[in-house]
Amino acid sequence: MWVEPYPDFSPEKPLFVCILANTGTARIPGISAAGKSPELTDYTPAADAELVETGTVFSISEPAMCPSGAPTPAVLTRASMLLTGIPCLFINAGLNIMPKIPFIDLNAQPGGDIRKGRAVVDATDIYRKSADLGRKFSKLSDLVMIGESVPGGTTTAMGVLRALGHNGRVSSSFPDNPTGIKERVVNEGMKASGISFGSLKNQPLRAVECMGDPMMAAAAGLVDGLNVRTILAGGTQMVSVLSIIKALGLKKDVSIATTCYVANDRTANFREMTELLGITAFAADPGFGSSRLQGLRMYEKGEVKEGVGAGGAMLAAAMLGFSQKEFKEKTEEVYRSVFSIS
Amino acid sequence: MWVEPYPDFSPEKPLFVCILANTGTARIPGISAAGKSPELTDYTPAADAELVETGTVFSISEPAMCPSGAPTPAVLTRASMLLTGIPCLFINAGLNIMPKIPFIDLNAQPGGDIRKGRAVVDATDIYRKSADLGRKFSKLSDLVMIGESVPGGTTTAMGVLRALGHNGRVSSSFPDNPTGIKERVVNEGMKASGISFGSLKNQPLRAVECMGDPMMAAAAGLVDGLNVRTILAGGTQMVSVLSIIKALGLKKDVSIATTCYVANDRTANFREMTELLGITAFAADPGFGSSRLQGLRMYEKGEVKEGVGAGGAMLAAAMLGFSQKEFKEKTEEVYRSVFSIS
Repeated sequence: MWVEPYPDFSPEKPLFVCILANTGTARIPGISAAGKSPELTDYTPAADAELVETGTVFSISEPAMCPSGAPTPAVLTRASMLLTGIPCLFINAGLNIMPKIPFIDLNAQPGGDIRKGRAVVDATDIYRKSADLGRKFSKLSDLVMIGESVPGGTTTAMGVLRALGHNGRVSSSFPDNPTGIKERVVNEGMKASGISFGSLKNQPLRAVECMGDPMMAAAAGLVDGLNVRTILAGGTQMVSVLSIIKALGLKKDVSIATTCYVANDRTANFREMTELLGITAFAADPGFGSSRLQGLRMYEKGEVKEGVGAGGAMLAAAMLGFSQKEFKEKTEEVYRSVFSIS
Repeated sequence: MWVEPYPDFSPEKPLFVCILANTGTARIPGISAAGKSPELTDYTPAADAELVETGTVFSISEPAMCPSGAPTPAVLTRASMLLTGIPCLFINAGLNIMPKIPFIDLNAQPGGDIRKGRAVVDATDIYRKSADLGRKFSKLSDLVMIGESVPGGTTTAMGVLRALGHNGRVSSSFPDNPTGIKERVVNEGMKASGISFGSLKNQPLRAVECMGDPMMAAAAGLVDGLNVRTILAGGTQMVSVLSIIKALGLKKDVSIATTCYVANDRTANFREMTELLGITAFAADPGFGSSRLQGLRMYEKGEVKEGVGAGGAMLAAAMLGFSQKEFKEKTEEVYRSVFSIS
């Protein structure tokens, strides 16, 4: 089975939501591989949304890719959307660059640099608006998957996990996880915010404001508003959202779905954290080892790993009966088309 | 029956969509009563959306009302949403003032002044993006109602109807329809655009670009993308959208719903036009004649008449089994609460 555990549910009206945000943290050199350079990470969420929606990008000359050349996971997400026909709605939870496709705007500011101790301006406001949106989605859909495109998001995830008292080790879009830089940035942020390990365990939205990013407030708010099966589509960034949900005491039907690359990342502790939080975790393997396209094979070497809800998008494909082979071939087709590979 | 003909369908997942736009045409003195002054009409769509969503307004010190003091029809729409629980999504099709609630952004420019011959910058782009959105909504909903808040919209409606070769007489939010001003503005616009009566009957989106407003492109695009029962919620502005849909040759399950105030407006020809276009038209009577609240009784004297999809919102309430009395009482409750009337 290419998705473990194999999903035993088949929704009638699934909805895929992708939350977009930028942060000052992403511009710290060496933090994020979600863009060719730290400055270009500002364009990554917009370009990802455009790619998933249209198969091309408008806001920048080429789609997001790692410095190595491995393509954005938006390619995988688009493949799943094309296969399954699931509608995808994008949410701007705080962007510097807006995508040139329709998106839902939460009127939120981009996140800051956590080293300065003010990561998110008003997490409660974002949370509340997003919860309203979640209530609406509950009336239209019977399964909502929530992905994200937030460069630098594993560092803010680490920050929030620490503030909530978890030894959460986070993954990375780099094959060599720059854990040293992340530790330094998180420690600097905790100092600037005047907090210590676990000191905000009863104030999760305050933890987001000090150490997180706007996506977390939006994702947690959505979960609060939703009264249908909900799947967080992401790796250790979504683990931080789960930790927020747990700290808030929300009782919801939530699980998490990621790629095998994050689930098996030994520099992170995705499985340990989801077990600790008591959440069902799905891991999906796209089978890229046998791909003839080098950019996809680079995923097998630890490049990129996850993002734009790619793991959840694979779960969605599996849920609707598509095989690993069908998914891989559709991804190859999208990748060739988007990057003009013959 | 307070809605005629009485709806014989009962959707499982209805969705209400409200398209918002500003135009330069609305600022022409004497054109629009949707705001206390021509300049303030810029705030009306944002304030209407905030009112429907939250029961209060943030973008301006008080909710939109006619110069006479009659309240915005957003009050009626909110009453229906509260009664029925139908989710409402707002679409920014070109605003100067953004609502401070979540909305879907089409990245479109506000409309111009039709007297200058360039009303909408790129109607085809708005149409295409909106059609994409409609396709997504079709996968989530089995009945979509489309309302609007576009001050000055009956003048642009008249402009498009004329360009498409219809003697469409449009309604007004004033009790005395300023038909003279509208005629002059439309004639000036047709001259500036170099077009004549019916000369754009085969180019409806071009007619929108010359004489219309961005809402029309968005509404027509949505209808194109939708493959479920669709109801245009509005008066003569939505008649202009119907004329665009007809001119495009779209074969869709579309009807129209408005208030009795527009349906019975003798300065307009709503019923004649819907019969000509071969479209089922619903008219709803909120029974405000017996209301103890003066602001609502003013509707009976021809103030406001329609807007923010109020007629369709009443149809929705009837469709889900609510009586005229229940609707009127909920509207009174909302009106009292929003305007702090004891």
